Amino acid sequence: MSSYEKLPLEPFFEAIEELKPKFIERITKAVSIPSVSSDETLRPKVVEMAHFLVDEMKQLGFEDIQLKELGIQPPPVSDPNLKLPPIVLGRFGQDPKKKNVLVYGHYDVQPALKEDGWTSEPFELYQDKAKDILYGRGVTDDKGPVVGWLNVIEAHNKLGWELPVNLIVCFEGMEESGSLGLDELVAKEANEYFKGVDQVTISDNYWLGTKKPVLTYGLRGCNYYQIIIEGPGADLHSGIFGGIIAEPMTDLIKVMSNLVDSKGKILIPGVYDMVAPLTDKENELYDAIDFSVEELNAASGSETSLHDNKQDILKHRWRFPSLSLHGIEGAFSGAGAKTVIPAKVVGKFSIRTVPDIDSGKLDQLVFKYITAEFEKLNSPNKFKVELIHDGNYWVSDPFNESFTAASKATQDVWGVVPDFTREGGSIPITLTFEKELGVDVLLLPMGRGDDGAHSINEKLDVSNYINGCKTLGSYLHYYAKA
Amino acid sequence: MSSYEKLPLEPFFEAIEELKPKFIERITKAVSIPSVSSDETLRPKVVEMAHFLVDEMKQLGFEDIQLKELGIQPPPVSDPNLKLPPIVLGRFGQDPKKKNVLVYGHYDVQPALKEDGWTSEPFELYQDKAKDILYGRGVTDDKGPVVGWLNVIEAHNKLGWELPVNLIVCFEGMEESGSLGLDELVAKEANEYFKGVDQVTISDNYWLGTKKPVLTYGLRGCNYYQIIIEGPGADLHSGIFGGIIAEPMTDLIKVMSNLVDSKGKILIPGVYDMVAPLTDKENELYDAIDFSVEELNAASGSETSLHDNKQDILKHRWRFPSLSLHGIEGAFSGAGAKTVIPAKVVGKFSIRTVPDIDSGKLDQLVFKYITAEFEKLNSPNKFKVELIHDGNYWVSDPFNESFTAASKATQDVWGVVPDFTREGGSIPITLTFEKELGVDVLLLPMGRGDDGAHSINEKLDVSNYINGCKTLGSYLHYYAKA
Repeated sequence: MSSYEKLPLEPFFEAIEELKPKFIERITKAVSIPSVSSDETLRPKVVEMAHFLVDEMKQLGFEDIQLKELGIQPPPVSDPNLKLPPIVLGRFGQDPKKKNVLVYGHYDVQPALKEDGWTSEPFELYQDKAKDILYGRGVTDDKGPVVGWLNVIEAHNKLGWELPVNLIVCFEGMEESGSLGLDELVAKEANEYFKGVDQVTISDNYWLGTKKPVLTYGLRGCNYYQIIIEGPGADLHSGIFGGIIAEPMTDLIKVMSNLVDSKGKILIPGVYDMVAPLTDKENELYDAIDFSVEELNAASGSETSLHDNKQDILKHRWRFPSLSLHGIEGAFSGAGAKTVIPAKVVGKFSIRTVPDIDSGKLDQLVFKYITAEFEKLNSPNKFKVELIHDGNYWVSDPFNESFTAASKATQDVWGVVPDFTREGGSIPITLTFEKELGVDVLLLPMGRGDDGAHSINEKLDVSNYINGCKTLGSYLHYYAKA
Repeated sequence: MSSYEKLPLEPFFEAIEELKPKFIERITKAVSIPSVSSDETLRPKVVEMAHFLVDEMKQLGFEDIQLKELGIQPPPVSDPNLKLPPIVLGRFGQDPKKKNVLVYGHYDVQPALKEDGWTSEPFELYQDKAKDILYGRGVTDDKGPVVGWLNVIEAHNKLGWELPVNLIVCFEGMEESGSLGLDELVAKEANEYFKGVDQVTISDNYWLGTKKPVLTYGLRGCNYYQIIIEGPGADLHSGIFGGIIAEPMTDLIKVMSNLVDSKGKILIPGVYDMVAPLTDKENELYDAIDFSVEELNAASGSETSLHDNKQDILKHRWRFPSLSLHGIEGAFSGAGAKTVIPAKVVGKFSIRTVPDIDSGKLDQLVFKYITAEFEKLNSPNKFKVELIHDGNYWVSDPFNESFTAASKATQDVWGVVPDFTREGGSIPITLTFEKELGVDVLLLPMGRGDDGAHSINEKLDVSNYINGCKTLGSYLHYYAKA
């Protein structure tokens, strides 16, 4: 454990413990509102969830609460007049002498049906008292962290303590459905509602494993491409046309087979040249992290690891690029046998990006290589390769003020130095806040790696919920002093 | 034109011409019954169509008419008590001195909706008088040929002529839906209803092009395979798992890429060694056939021919094997972008077979090669390759009695020697009749290559309908004399 000047936060921790029944009640209420953003018929419930937060915030003493309307949801939608759920903004404290911390969370959830295999009703919080675990849709993603911030205020109110920072909250209701409208809102409010924000904290990810708290300082980016190969004017019968026309599938499969090898090595020349060299100091970081091949196998449900040690696994998940072949649009994809020659096939793949891959330069390498591979085939078919979307990687300084504060808070609460981790996936809003507000972003997770955020039986351990609230509050105190 | 002793069939041809309005009325009634076998809600219409044929047959003097019930349709079905449509059997003539010819046809049709792009109602026969073409679902596939046989009887009745052979009809109502129950019925009736049959004639295919009649003496077979590669226990997120596990899609694409090249050459060793050598005599056959690269391009709607001359195209369609990659089950197949690592992917491909490929030996070559290709990858994923179904090729002697008779009939009616063709696809019932009854089968098409059997605006030229009836009848006379 590293040494630092501990703050006298015991009363705060005790207040959290005393309020535990109330906090469980609060997450129970939150889970009971099925705020599924992808289900149009449940849109009123998403809006109800926004109002639930507003009511709670009012009772706790938030000021300047606003419901930011984002207009009509763009197609594809069934209801052409479907309104996007509002973004909830609010402030707690406006003391010009204090730092301003913006916290982001989302109050919408993934769909869930009991029939999917849940052992309890997904929209009724179920507390397994023996295991001390809370089950319910959204309990960890992201209602636990969202109400966690409110719990922190309540504990301060109970103690009669001032919050050490001014807190600005930004809770959205479309995160599980592409965060429609959020980027525009953040850009618009950067110099309005969010003016003066010093730091952004997002609690919407998870520990790497199940035992050790983490702080997340990096995310991979993702460039998603498609290769379009088109031949005949319509799908043809393979009995009549097999052997006499150039089949688009043959060409596509050939091109796709040259993108990555079975060991995961990207075969597109130049990609690895852009990757920042691994320094000795960075290399050592991986030794301390709590992870194992066994944990990967448990997570993947198989023994298909490409690497036989935790260091290589973590490096390839976090700081090296990867290429995945996702599928083919336009080819036969059903069960059974269909003797079709597909007329137009679209191969989908993506590359996870890391520092210092330049996204535009990567596109050029990809286009050039794939075009050359197709040209080698000497095929009469039409060919195109294009980017569908990209999102940059993100990496922060794990030794900056907010990470240091969060590390101290974690040590106070959990009694261990957190692992400093990255993630293989992307959280696009991280980049949006960093870019639009020009401030550092901290990812401070509450739940564990096995919470099953998008799966059945989503859960949050009571210890993570309660200690998570302690950590969020404690972090604000350390950050205020930094 | 080859020389042969012409039969005095002019009165028969004249009778057909005189009956033309009645024959158009008969096909109009047949088309008006939407006997779509794949649509459970239209099953009563399929049965109605069977009864329509029975009524027509009774009026014409058929005997021993039987509706053979085939029992309940096996799953998948919505209605677990759904009955299969009956097979219609009947005899015209039972003279022991005459040859017995069995004719097969099907009275069910493909689905059709006006909204699919039909210019007229699909189940109302539309006669374009300027072009002299009949439009309607089933008009060429296969209601035209089915009622064509009835028209032949009617013309004989009108003339007071005896039919030169005993005719046995076998009309089924599930051809467009896998001919469920037909194989069993043919086997069962081989020594019962079909006892003594000398020859089977099927009119359920098409001319190669649009100008010249053909007789079909060969069909390719089809062995359909799947390669199953399985890794993680469930689909995974490519952000979190990309680069650290062996992805099934990477392995599958690699294996599939080594099955066939972009020129259509099969890469599995040993397959071409089994193909019967092309003799000089056979090679010459292709020169006379009416076809061109342009016709192929028109049919495929593209300029993607693998060969620059008609001979090579026809050889590769009819007498060389081909391998087509159909698609992948389990991978992402939708529009847009999904960052999934599919857990289990199933690659589908088939090989069109020709003389003298041994189906069982082909399976062994395929399994051995693909297994070796997968093993080269050294992948931890689970692998399996299996046959989904096979159907043998068929080839007949184009100089036997029935083909010779059909050739003479065609010359009488159309004034040209027909092209002797094969087809690239398969008509499994051909093999069933040959095998179960132990007799020769003749494929004697009525419609043209551009009739659009399974497409919108299915058509049959009036000339093909009327001359087709003449050819069917004339063929029976020549065959009786052979």
